[in-house]
Amino acid sequence: MIVVIKPHAPEAQIAEVIAEVEKLGYTAHPISGERHTVVAAIGDETTHHTLESLNALPQVERVLPVQKRYKLASRESRPESTVVYADGAPVGGSGFAIMAGPCSVESEEGLLATACAVKAAGATFLRGGAFKPRTSPYEFQGLGKEGLRLLRIAKQETGLKIVTELLSEHDTDAVAETADIIQIGARNAQNFRLLVAAARTGKPILLKRGLSQRIEEWLLGAEYILSSGNPNVILCERGIRTFETYTRNTLDLAAVAAVKRESHLPVIVDPSQGCGRADLVPTLCAGAVAVGADGLIIEVHPNPAEALSDGQQQVDFALFDKLMKGLQPFLSATGRTTV
Amino acid sequence: MIVVIKPHAPEAQIAEVIAEVEKLGYTAHPISGERHTVVAAIGDETTHHTLESLNALPQVERVLPVQKRYKLASRESRPESTVVYADGAPVGGSGFAIMAGPCSVESEEGLLATACAVKAAGATFLRGGAFKPRTSPYEFQGLGKEGLRLLRIAKQETGLKIVTELLSEHDTDAVAETADIIQIGARNAQNFRLLVAAARTGKPILLKRGLSQRIEEWLLGAEYILSSGNPNVILCERGIRTFETYTRNTLDLAAVAAVKRESHLPVIVDPSQGCGRADLVPTLCAGAVAVGADGLIIEVHPNPAEALSDGQQQVDFALFDKLMKGLQPFLSATGRTTV
Amino acid sequence: MIVVIKPHAPEAQIAEVIAEVEKLGYTAHPISGERHTVVAAIGDETTHHTLESLNALPQVERVLPVQKRYKLASRESRPESTVVYADGAPVGGSGFAIMAGPCSVESEEGLLATACAVKAAGATFLRGGAFKPRTSPYEFQGLGKEGLRLLRIAKQETGLKIVTELLSEHDTDAVAETADIIQIGARNAQNFRLLVAAARTGKPILLKRGLSQRIEEWLLGAEYILSSGNPNVILCERGIRTFETYTRNTLDLAAVAAVKRESHLPVIVDPSQGCGRADLVPTLCAGAVAVGADGLIIEVHPNPAEALSDGQQQVDFALFDKLMKGLQPFLSATGRTTV
Amino acid sequence: MIVVIKPHAPEAQIAEVIAEVEKLGYTAHPISGERHTVVAAIGDETTHHTLESLNALPQVERVLPVQKRYKLASRESRPESTVVYADGAPVGGSGFAIMAGPCSVESEEGLLATACAVKAAGATFLRGGAFKPRTSPYEFQGLGKEGLRLLRIAKQETGLKIVTELLSEHDTDAVAETADIIQIGARNAQNFRLLVAAARTGKPILLKRGLSQRIEEWLLGAEYILSSGNPNVILCERGIRTFETYTRNTLDLAAVAAVKRESHLPVIVDPSQGCGRADLVPTLCAGAVAVGADGLIIEVHPNPAEALSDGQQQVDFALFDKLMKGLQPFLSATGRTTV
Repeated sequence: MIVVIKPHAPEAQIAEVIAEVEKLGYTAHPISGERHTVVAAIGDETTHHTLESLNALPQVERVLPVQKRYKLASRESRPESTVVYADGAPVGGSGFAIMAGPCSVESEEGLLATACAVKAAGATFLRGGAFKPRTSPYEFQGLGKEGLRLLRIAKQETGLKIVTELLSEHDTDAVAETADIIQIGARNAQNFRLLVAAARTGKPILLKRGLSQRIEEWLLGAEYILSSGNPNVILCERGIRTFETYTRNTLDLAAVAAVKRESHLPVIVDPSQGCGRADLVPTLCAGAVAVGADGLIIEVHPNPAEALSDGQQQVDFALFDKLMKGLQPFLSATGRTTV
Repeated sequence: MIVVIKPHAPEAQIAEVIAEVEKLGYTAHPISGERHTVVAAIGDETTHHTLESLNALPQVERVLPVQKRYKLASRESRPESTVVYADGAPVGGSGFAIMAGPCSVESEEGLLATACAVKAAGATFLRGGAFKPRTSPYEFQGLGKEGLRLLRIAKQETGLKIVTELLSEHDTDAVAETADIIQIGARNAQNFRLLVAAARTGKPILLKRGLSQRIEEWLLGAEYILSSGNPNVILCERGIRTFETYTRNTLDLAAVAAVKRESHLPVIVDPSQGCGRADLVPTLCAGAVAVGADGLIIEVHPNPAEALSDGQQQVDFALFDKLMKGLQPFLSATGRTTV
Repeated sequence: MIVVIKPHAPEAQIAEVIAEVEKLGYTAHPISGERHTVVAAIGDETTHHTLESLNALPQVERVLPVQKRYKLASRESRPESTVVYADGAPVGGSGFAIMAGPCSVESEEGLLATACAVKAAGATFLRGGAFKPRTSPYEFQGLGKEGLRLLRIAKQETGLKIVTELLSEHDTDAVAETADIIQIGARNAQNFRLLVAAARTGKPILLKRGLSQRIEEWLLGAEYILSSGNPNVILCERGIRTFETYTRNTLDLAAVAAVKRESHLPVIVDPSQGCGRADLVPTLCAGAVAVGADGLIIEVHPNPAEALSDGQQQVDFALFDKLMKGLQPFLSATGRTTV
Repeated sequence: MIVVIKPHAPEAQIAEVIAEVEKLGYTAHPISGERHTVVAAIGDETTHHTLESLNALPQVERVLPVQKRYKLASRESRPESTVVYADGAPVGGSGFAIMAGPCSVESEEGLLATACAVKAAGATFLRGGAFKPRTSPYEFQGLGKEGLRLLRIAKQETGLKIVTELLSEHDTDAVAETADIIQIGARNAQNFRLLVAAARTGKPILLKRGLSQRIEEWLLGAEYILSSGNPNVILCERGIRTFETYTRNTLDLAAVAAVKRESHLPVIVDPSQGCGRADLVPTLCAGAVAVGADGLIIEVHPNPAEALSDGQQQVDFALFDKLMKGLQPFLSATGRTTV
């Protein structure tokens, strides 16, 4: 870390900073410039006490971290890209993973119809929420364990792998029994205890980016899972919260490119949450392919206008089929094929 | 709700919207303007299916909700301001509650010294994290149950009421045993299952605003607690995430005034998280008093430069004492006194 | 507009709202629901006094606009997509426009070398700032009129059309003389007097989105130009300001899709400003093509490490050439070719 | 500046960075840590070429600036707080300046009534827009020069000093003739040519913070004025753009405290723009006093419901009078009195 001392600080105050830096286990290298003295502190920032607390000293102007805070998630630690296998189906690598299905599991009939439709159009994974995190307690909260049962039926019928969200540590075992990929939603992106509980099941974890999570923080969320001994993390960009109100969130496609550069983990995109409008979903799917995403997770519903949650952002079967066909030229452009 | 139809939509498409509105249980009132037809849908929006799913129809331009989505938290449902009592100590009403203590509980000695110092300066509540939600898994995660034990000792020694954070559903009983107020942190503000678990203990809940939570969403978080049968909710503004980097967060003092208007619940302010800089904390405390907050929760540490977490935003004993003295004229200006 | 009255407002207060609505020239249609009365106000919102001022009345809870505020920029007013011609070169339509060149014009030699390089790689337009809006007065402010002279030389030498920024009303004539497209930068996106001055030259205007401009506001900026009698507006998405710090801005590629839906105007993307990092520029160019942009404006410099402005986001000649080659499969996927 | 080299970079690449740093005029001090080499570059960052362009080199991970970029605006350059005098009336120092008046100048009668009302309640300055920057070209654009004439009449009648906005370089002389303080609005906060034009009149400049302007950028805007030879700058916090929609903007009261710390310039607060809701204005005024603002600029209108602009945020005469009375205890708490 670099500790920047305020201009005109007397020698004794600089010495105090140096002493504190060394007390906290670093080697201190003071450098005097024209206006500022800076103290370069040599030592591994991830195992030592952070020096940011030195901001508490009146003579310290700023403390600048030098190292990245994530290790296991970084590409430096693992240059080759990771492929995560979910019940044999790959996410990452040369393939392109399509996950699709309803926002919420609502009924056996609707789920099976959707599963068949998305499979026919090219999906390998069925998504569907049994436990739903809803902004209001008066909104539909999901079918719970009954929803999990319906997902298992759908898997049996279609062979699609199951992606479903874990909301509560108490449901970890039940969800892990059904899910081929356990989803951690944006609202729980920094619910670290849930991340660790999910990690310990050994199942692949789809980790959505938090609503206002910086890329570094998102990778540190992944680091919680990785450092719990589970290497199977799939990152999912799903839009961040900004001032824009035309779309529900602002899909940060540059973050996909950034994370592919910083990390070896596969990254997929959720265009449905990402914009909150079915009419923009197909275009954003093409954009996701072009920026190098490893897959898509798309909300599909037999009749969006009557969906029990987020109808405005779900596409119907016909649009999904058209979307999938429209994606092929972009997949070809990247040299990828759906898995 | 108001459903706005796109200009030039044919009659049949308007009829389809009306039919859908009525199918979902509302009474439909179409009104034709110069360019637009709007359909006013009469019915309780909190108990009916939302009409936002109608955005899925191509002829629908927008759906505008009319009602507020929270009920129990609203001032309409309860015009008088709520006072929450935590082991007999009030938050809300004519008093002003001071909660202070270290970011993390680090040691018995440090905690007791801090407890005595903040009590002497006028605090009624001792804050201190036993379970810490840290952005990185490599950072100090708190002492856990040992931290709770130290908090109980501090309560015994000083009589201060205890405010401490609940991170995991699994720790609910342990935290509830120690805490006079259970804190739900910003990162768990939409961890609804944790909210409900905390609510069920019957203890007062201090609900921090999420990093990017709109006021409506924050009150809906409170609604989860209230609708679980626990009326003892204290809201806490702790800064929101914006583009500004000078401060760690942007303390939204207008939100205090807004929430006092919209809701009967007491609202306190966390200036330490709110700005992330000890040097601004005293000024923001005065601001919080002036905008009508019901209390403050302030991070205090014997030696911030060596704190195990967030040293840069913790004030030492001398500054806390000065801060408390400086607050008195502002409290007098609002006709309040510390409790 | 829809005026939502607070619950339990007495009849006289509702009558007051109705009277005010009619006084301001609208026809008022009150509708009483279970909890709320709403007053639908029929009348053209773009020519009448806004009713948002009615929020000043204590019985009014909210005022909801129904109409879109832009007219000439809307696709409703002109369903077919507009093609803007700049000295004969099209932007919009089936072609794809490549604008490239240095952030700032720095020297004749550097500019000509860059012009030749970008032309060889496929660009049709040369970008380059003669007048530079810099955050600090101590940074390089551009060569001014000498920069314009060099741009004219570059045009003579290469035939590339010129895109350059107008910063000041006083320079309008000088810039218009040189520019085939006048750029209005993000910081001046709501400098309406500059927009009108630029519009009046009759030259095509490239209107960058403001740093925190909502899509509606951006289109209203275009409306200033269009309503001044200049139909030649090219919109440019260049990233918005968010909490993320990994990238300089957050490139909002969904906004490209949104604006193509809402408006008939061509939209191009500036990936250089959009992310502020040369290493992400090629990937974002592919993303821009995929979401339907009509062109790109890319910063290219002979030696970015020594550039007088924004070196970190400029690509060198080799990378630009590679980028252009890499773009072809995505252009093919959209059925477009560079113009 | 500190140049952070990527881990494992070979010596030759480090040498290249050092050579580039020295070529750009700095003295390079390389320091090798456990994982990273950093190169500390000694030299005045405000007069040398920025090293941020070195991010263009593949072996460079990050470049960290050390110095603050503003000089004349900084408290280091001038430790005592500046008092700006506008036609003899002070802003800054021990007094507290009240500026009040309509959003737009609409009519002689309304303006004079407002001027008398705000003067009676304690204002020293009359605000009122003659030139209005409106988001839409179809909204009221102000009375222009006729508005300036009415402001001069109001000054003659009441003795109030005049604050009015400059929108265009072409109006600089006309506005300077009337204004005792020239206001630069948020949308023009980075219209640097307008800043310089306003500065050159020698009149005090009220510089509003841009909608998404970081504190550093705001002070650099002031630096444009100061470095043009005009020392009379008043900063005005008026709310920043965030994701929150309950209020029009998020009033950043912590920024007032921050700027008072970083700069010697007086800072006032605009609560009307800051929240966009008249009902919150009085509370935010108290908050502004408490955080150390040097004054307030408040929108007051005889009949807000019929105002030609921003009626929802203007207070009427009765509320303004009550607001002013309610402010006194807070002013006393800070030891200030209205000037």
